[in-house]
Amino acid sequence: LSASELARGIRSRDNRLVGRAITLVERGGPEAARLIAEIFSETGRARLIGVTGSPGAGKSTFVGRLALEYRRLGKRVGVIAIDPSSPYSGGAILGDRIRMSELYTDPDVFIRSMATRGALGGLSPSTIDAADILDAAGYDPIMIETVGVGQDEVDVVRAADSIGVIVVPGLGDEIQAIKAGILEIADVFVVNKADRDGADRTVAELSMNLDFAPSAGPWRPPIVKTVATRGEGIAAAREAFDRHREHLDDTGAGRQRRLDRARARLRALLQARFFGAIEADADSAEGLDEAVGRVAERRLDPYGAAEALFSRFEAR
Amino acid sequence: LSASELARGIRSRDNRLVGRAITLVERGGPEAARLIAEIFSETGRARLIGVTGSPGAGKSTFVGRLALEYRRLGKRVGVIAIDPSSPYSGGAILGDRIRMSELYTDPDVFIRSMATRGALGGLSPSTIDAADILDAAGYDPIMIETVGVGQDEVDVVRAADSIGVIVVPGLGDEIQAIKAGILEIADVFVVNKADRDGADRTVAELSMNLDFAPSAGPWRPPIVKTVATRGEGIAAAREAFDRHREHLDDTGAGRQRRLDRARARLRALLQARFFGAIEADADSAEGLDEAVGRVAERRLDPYGAAEALFSRFEAR
Repeated sequence: LSASELARGIRSRDNRLVGRAITLVERGGPEAARLIAEIFSETGRARLIGVTGSPGAGKSTFVGRLALEYRRLGKRVGVIAIDPSSPYSGGAILGDRIRMSELYTDPDVFIRSMATRGALGGLSPSTIDAADILDAAGYDPIMIETVGVGQDEVDVVRAADSIGVIVVPGLGDEIQAIKAGILEIADVFVVNKADRDGADRTVAELSMNLDFAPSAGPWRPPIVKTVATRGEGIAAAREAFDRHREHLDDTGAGRQRRLDRARARLRALLQARFFGAIEADADSAEGLDEAVGRVAERRLDPYGAAEALFSRFEAR
Repeated sequence: LSASELARGIRSRDNRLVGRAITLVERGGPEAARLIAEIFSETGRARLIGVTGSPGAGKSTFVGRLALEYRRLGKRVGVIAIDPSSPYSGGAILGDRIRMSELYTDPDVFIRSMATRGALGGLSPSTIDAADILDAAGYDPIMIETVGVGQDEVDVVRAADSIGVIVVPGLGDEIQAIKAGILEIADVFVVNKADRDGADRTVAELSMNLDFAPSAGPWRPPIVKTVATRGEGIAAAREAFDRHREHLDDTGAGRQRRLDRARARLRALLQARFFGAIEADADSAEGLDEAVGRVAERRLDPYGAAEALFSRFEAR
């Protein structure tokens, strides 16, 4: 199917064609670029909610419950689950997905797992392309759920308008990991499995950390307790996300997020274009492969090699 | 101090100047490039051991004990600890470091924490530059220890010759996270805190995962049990790393690692050079900033914008 045919399918909210369009952007290439170019002016309406947190925090269950909550309010909901490409995790993720079977049979919910290229996640431009496709197909909100809490996950959820960070009670080491970078990006904290011992302490610890956060802005992330498996606290979490959306709309923060997202997206595309050009020439006598070999053998220093390659690229 | 003076200091194993040289490469710039160019032909002797694992797995303690073990064998040992730049984690890391005080007073051990630029770690070229400096100063092995298990940590430890992945017993969710990408990169598995319940089960689970690994090559990662706080199992871990080094030397695997490392390094430098050129022109009428604004407002599609920026860059 051509980009135009897929674009028409997206506009007419044909979920089968929405799925095929996402498959196209996952593969990439010029036809994918044409598709995004064609639908791009019809995007920008949906809110992107990024959800991250540690493995085992119950992210998938939370996202499923939040999707049900938005359905209850008559919203059409998109879910993009960023799965690591490793085949090992297939089972675990499938297990979580099965719990969301109620959603799978709902035509106004579109759930898609996307494999990522790196070993452990990673911002592939196709994730944002997929969000654009769901946006153009009238899904709003669109939730992006990541596995793990690495830098790439941070990059993925940074592309969102509102970022939820899911934590669980009683994991001291966990909190330590969360402190290392995740704390700063949360718009809403969700303490899930809040029926466990230590939930209130975790809330208190997060709150104290917020008190001392150097980057404290006008928005103080609310901390919501949930038991996602039983649906408890989900309405409060949804309200917290909605309040954050109002904050984005009322202040310049929403516009800044859109600018940041556009910048990250352009940089990723420019980078792909640049390395495409470098790789096209890689096996020539003065190309990347030769330089890699000489650097590996310590016959050429990497800074000098990079400079020579860049000059050569400029002089094409 | 100039690059030449620092290079002389590195050659004469003056630890104060080694430290200043690392500070220089952390800052970056042309003088840092000159320094690496000057010492590069004297590098490539040291073995790099990357150590990663979940927060709380005891990585720092393990690395400290392994350093002591190599000292016992008369080796001069370098340690580069990749710390997230977040100020929140400072305390936790310092706590681990204090346990390594025996190492801090040893002139034949060089320990350096390096902040990374991203929110949660990240391969900054300066990490590999620092390893080159320690290499030229005669440290061997050089251990690179990361915080967390995200994509960037994977990138950092991938730069190593031998990769140790530290896990702890009884964390089902943990194993799940480990499966997602980390399993494939381990050359040696260390089950630390092996006096805890479930250590043997964790060993069995890892072993079973290895049995089913699709990427199984000629090297099967050994699984070593340690109690790093008491120094138990450290000699066995060291032997496992040494056996891996022999494997690298005896097969083509070592050369392939050096090529991969050189390629990743060149790509990082080329990327920095490319974006430097793009950013230098960012605020012109047709530059990146204008494109970002138009993409954010959905007036220009990102693929078209990237193509136009790239053409403009080529036509400079």
